[in-house]
Amino acid sequence: MGFGTMAQTFNAVTVENGTGMGRFMLVCEHASNAFPDAFGDLGIDADTARSHVAWDPGALALARALSKRLDSVLIHAGVSRLIQDLNRPPNAQSAMPEKSEVYLIPGNRDLTTAERLRRTREIYIPFHARVAAELAQRLARGEQPAFVTVHSFTPVYFGQPRNVEIGFIHDGDASFAETVLDRARVTTGHRCELNAPYSAADGVAHTLRLHATPYGLRHVMIEVRNDLLAEDAAVTRIADGLAEALRRALEWLEDVGNGKETV
Amino acid sequence: MGFGTMAQTFNAVTVENGTGMGRFMLVCEHASNAFPDAFGDLGIDADTARSHVAWDPGALALARALSKRLDSVLIHAGVSRLIQDLNRPPNAQSAMPEKSEVYLIPGNRDLTTAERLRRTREIYIPFHARVAAELAQRLARGEQPAFVTVHSFTPVYFGQPRNVEIGFIHDGDASFAETVLDRARVTTGHRCELNAPYSAADGVAHTLRLHATPYGLRHVMIEVRNDLLAEDAAVTRIADGLAEALRRALEWLEDVGNGKETV
Repeated sequence: MGFGTMAQTFNAVTVENGTGMGRFMLVCEHASNAFPDAFGDLGIDADTARSHVAWDPGALALARALSKRLDSVLIHAGVSRLIQDLNRPPNAQSAMPEKSEVYLIPGNRDLTTAERLRRTREIYIPFHARVAAELAQRLARGEQPAFVTVHSFTPVYFGQPRNVEIGFIHDGDASFAETVLDRARVTTGHRCELNAPYSAADGVAHTLRLHATPYGLRHVMIEVRNDLLAEDAAVTRIADGLAEALRRALEWLEDVGNGKETV
Repeated sequence: MGFGTMAQTFNAVTVENGTGMGRFMLVCEHASNAFPDAFGDLGIDADTARSHVAWDPGALALARALSKRLDSVLIHAGVSRLIQDLNRPPNAQSAMPEKSEVYLIPGNRDLTTAERLRRTREIYIPFHARVAAELAQRLARGEQPAFVTVHSFTPVYFGQPRNVEIGFIHDGDASFAETVLDRARVTTGHRCELNAPYSAADGVAHTLRLHATPYGLRHVMIEVRNDLLAEDAAVTRIADGLAEALRRALEWLEDVGNGKETV
């Protein structure tokens, strides 16, 4: 096959830094481009398996760096989004896409109901059950974690270059995303935008909607252009800036809530 | 103890009619007034354990009758809401209340974090994980179930009589609740009201918000005044009327969507 990412077994979900005392929950749905034997390679070639349609390159490294800096739990996925996109409802066409951007995915063509059901049972259900359980336990302990999903996006999409470098996307409540964005412009030095290169209206905020919004949690989906994550040193630098922005945003919003600041 | 409902073991969640081919998912969070040994009786007396603060009397019988008439899955809880109210976030005071209406619950006073966490792990997490899994599998099969929670309420609350007989409560999207309500007025002959005797703004729509709203599902929380459910014959009659209203509401909304009706 030639993929570096073929695997005999797989974990739908992995939790790291579960005992971290920080105030955040980090989730990385597109962490992996693994194609475990149970699902096969979907008939794609090695270039496709390494491309942004199979995963979010650099997102796991960034999420791990944030988890370390924020001393906060990280939950990440163990299979390619082409097998099951965990940031989509299981009935969405894009959850098991026949075509992603310009790439055809033969193994997703004319999927049987049985295969959709199997992937949902083996990947979607355990992943989101684990996120829900980690969250419920923190709530029961009296914590109100800020909920952060970590993604990367391709610099060129359908042939069009994207100028935005880091996007901050929210579901129902914009306040945390806006506050992080303001700080990230300074702390990262990158071109930061709200709800770019896409927004919840495009159906990309499923994880936030499923977990953060029902509990009224502060939340943001961070999207970093993946060419900025190609080198370790760059990941480190961006993680430094984003961790600082996330921490300051939470402090500022809590100070406002406590009357220490005026809005 | 004298409770008819003390139990050595317990199931946090029970699924009935899981292979039903109907278009609904029925959930009954307050089905049981069981106080399993693992949690004890919370220091309450037998009257309190039989009262509406411990469960929704008649709700399970009604939910089962609806499950049969609609040939649809029913998921119900196995412990008293005083141990864990599954229709509240686990961090809400009312999830493990020290006082419910006029009843003091000694076993919930000054709960330790460890005990809150244990109940959340043993009751809340498995219950909602099962609801989520049943729903995800139906979505993966291409179904779009209408999501219905079944409750009962006390005719007298803090000394005030309630005139409403059946309430229809919604979370974000009112359309299904309104449509069922209109039909239920005719099919049940009872005094039906929207968002009565309380509404999602009172924090009582947690289950709808956690499961139905993120997927954009049609949903309604049905609240029947519990004096109307005291006799089997009455449960049967109300179930007939509500099942008819639910079925007709779904058909009507789908016909509108298909252009067969004008709004």
